[in-house]
Amino acid sequence: MINILFAALTERWEQYETPLRAALEATGLAYCLGTDLPAEEVDYIIYAPNSTVQDFSIFPNLKAVLNLWAGVEAVVNNPTLTVPLARMVDEHGLTQGMVEWVTGHVMRHHLGMDAHINNPDRIWDDTPPPLSKDRPVTILGLGVLGQACAKALTNLGFPVTGWSRSAKDILGIRALHGDDGLTQALRDAQILVLLLPNTSATTNIMNAERLALLAPGAFLVNPGRGPLIDDDALLAALDSGQIGHATLDVFRVEPLPQDHAFWTHPRVTVTPHIASCTRPDTAAHAIADNIARSEAGAPMLHLVDRDAGY
Amino acid sequence: MINILFAALTERWEQYETPLRAALEATGLAYCLGTDLPAEEVDYIIYAPNSTVQDFSIFPNLKAVLNLWAGVEAVVNNPTLTVPLARMVDEHGLTQGMVEWVTGHVMRHHLGMDAHINNPDRIWDDTPPPLSKDRPVTILGLGVLGQACAKALTNLGFPVTGWSRSAKDILGIRALHGDDGLTQALRDAQILVLLLPNTSATTNIMNAERLALLAPGAFLVNPGRGPLIDDDALLAALDSGQIGHATLDVFRVEPLPQDHAFWTHPRVTVTPHIASCTRPDTAAHAIADNIARSEAGAPMLHLVDRDAGY
Ligand SMILES: NC(=O)c1ccc[n+]([C@@H]2O[C@H](COP(=O)([O-])OP(=O)(O)OC[C@H]3O[C@@H](n4cnc5c(N)ncnc54)[C@H](OP(=O)(O)O)[C@@H]3O)[C@@H](O)[C@H]2O)c1
Ligand SMILES: NC(=O)c1ccc[n+]([C@@H]2O[C@H](COP(=O)([O-])OP(=O)(O)OC[C@H]3O[C@@H](n4cnc5c(N)ncnc54)[C@H](OP(=O)(O)O)[C@@H]3O)[C@@H](O)[C@H]2O)c1
Repeated sequence: MINILFAALTERWEQYETPLRAALEATGLAYCLGTDLPAEEVDYIIYAPNSTVQDFSIFPNLKAVLNLWAGVEAVVNNPTLTVPLARMVDEHGLTQGMVEWVTGHVMRHHLGMDAHINNPDRIWDDTPPPLSKDRPVTILGLGVLGQACAKALTNLGFPVTGWSRSAKDILGIRALHGDDGLTQALRDAQILVLLLPNTSATTNIMNAERLALLAPGAFLVNPGRGPLIDDDALLAALDSGQIGHATLDVFRVEPLPQDHAFWTHPRVTVTPHIASCTRPDTAAHAIADNIARSEAGAPMLHLVDRDAGY
Repeated sequence: MINILFAALTERWEQYETPLRAALEATGLAYCLGTDLPAEEVDYIIYAPNSTVQDFSIFPNLKAVLNLWAGVEAVVNNPTLTVPLARMVDEHGLTQGMVEWVTGHVMRHHLGMDAHINNPDRIWDDTPPPLSKDRPVTILGLGVLGQACAKALTNLGFPVTGWSRSAKDILGIRALHGDDGLTQALRDAQILVLLLPNTSATTNIMNAERLALLAPGAFLVNPGRGPLIDDDALLAALDSGQIGHATLDVFRVEPLPQDHAFWTHPRVTVTPHIASCTRPDTAAHAIADNIARSEAGAPMLHLVDRDAGY
């Protein structure tokens, strides 16, 4: 019998209990799943960082923690966590949702839709937008989400450049890495998508200097994490015209405070951290399958590198 | 020596002359291309319906007319036109542009972007949108453009139903035809894309009765032709909530008159007939290659069925 503690907000338990039980049944494991188990008996924790569990040292027999979300910055540096930490990779839910959101907002900026959605002066300007082949897009972060978005945008005809920490060779895109790679990746990009994790190495990566490398009037799309951007530098670049529009899904403080300048800036679109969500049906299978791997003695999938922070 | 008359507005000549000459050179044909040739010497006419040429009977040796645009409703019923009429199929320009526009506006409605683009009350509602797999899309018209859009939307995960005059079998979509097929195709569709030509059989095809078949709050996207929709029925369906939003690129009168209700309706987006444009570079090749086929005795491509009207 393996004991699995679900440590997240009550509303999550309501969403996840049924699909998790179904997915665990499907693995054939004998299990006990609950939100309140004796600490010494807990084998696995399914975890959201905003849960009441913050001290992992009270679970002497803990084998692994399975994060419900893709981003792990709120748990990765917890010094009481000494067992493996797996993050969420949920192809048909989380990844698919991100592909849809990124594709949608890239197309929106590419086609210049906002000028049609809001057109109080009834302007009929039939200058055609450029084709996607003439619109270079850069994606910072070529992990699960960055690669999936790169593929979708390549399918639509965009020339895509990607950037990651390690060198990569990915069919159909220009994959760069390292400091020089970053400068090259940003230079003259017309649409920039941020899909990096939030780590000490990525904080404020989009500062004034790097924003200045983009093509004048470039569009910035951030579904990654708020701290990737220096907010003041972005506001200055928006005001100077260097950035044509910013569509932001993530912020340093969420919900974005009502008095934040992003809410009222005419060239900023705020979306409420909905770029992508873990979907209980598909995510439950990802979690159950990873626990089954661990029980079978196989290495767990999607383990976080605690030093790298993601 | 073949003589090719370019009969379109002067501004088109300025855009097309250089790419057309280059594409004709590439075919190896001996040719003369101009906007003012002796009528009795003209072999081919490259044509836009708003040109000054309306009487084709003055060209005794005319072999074919090559329309610059995909839609032929303004020339197909010209009784003086007795030679073959080819319409524009321009994969890398016209078709690609339509795929981009349709994908963009489908994603926009799918993701509910307008509520984020215009959000004066700073509402942070993080209910996730459904995934594309749960958003049935129907495309009326499965020709060059309809099929290309169906493929792009299928790639993004949407369940796509298409409808055409003749029966078709297309991988990955539900292809329907005929009157019963239309009812089935419209029933419960959440996003409807119109890519039919304007013919006597398609005028007002989206009337009140058929709009009522769609899922309540459905999105209507029309890059086909204005007369496909009964405008008054659409306005009523928008006001009742049966249609959640209409994004219209084409109209009975273009530019859309300044006093038309579509301009000010809060749930209508007007785009200025830019869904897709023939692009001179790629279109010039399509035209030159078709002339070369004709000169080599091969059947021309993309000939219009004068009886069907498209
Ligand atoms: N807004 C939302 O709704 C939402 C939803 C899910 C996720 N997210 C965010 O998206 C992020 C990415 O998710 P994922 O699943 O794609 O993560 P992932 O698979 O871990 O990929 C992260 C990518 O970032 C690169 N990277 C990390 N640190 C770097 C550095 N210092 N320099 C250069 N590249 C660096 C990695 O490079 P290597 O490949 O070389 O390791 C990798 O390519 C998450 O961390 C989360 O913050 C947001
Ligand atoms: N907004 C813009 O910028 C723009 C640009 C280009 C084109 N367009 C419009 O897009 C239209 C479609 O272009 P296309 O190149 O895809 O044309 P196409 O290849 O001729 O395809 C037309 C499609 O409509 C179907 N159809 C025609 N009449 C029908 C009827 N009575 N009932 C059911 N189906 C019918 C045809 O059925 P079958 O396959 O059975 O023949 C075919 O699938 C053009 O006619 C033009 O009006 C708009």
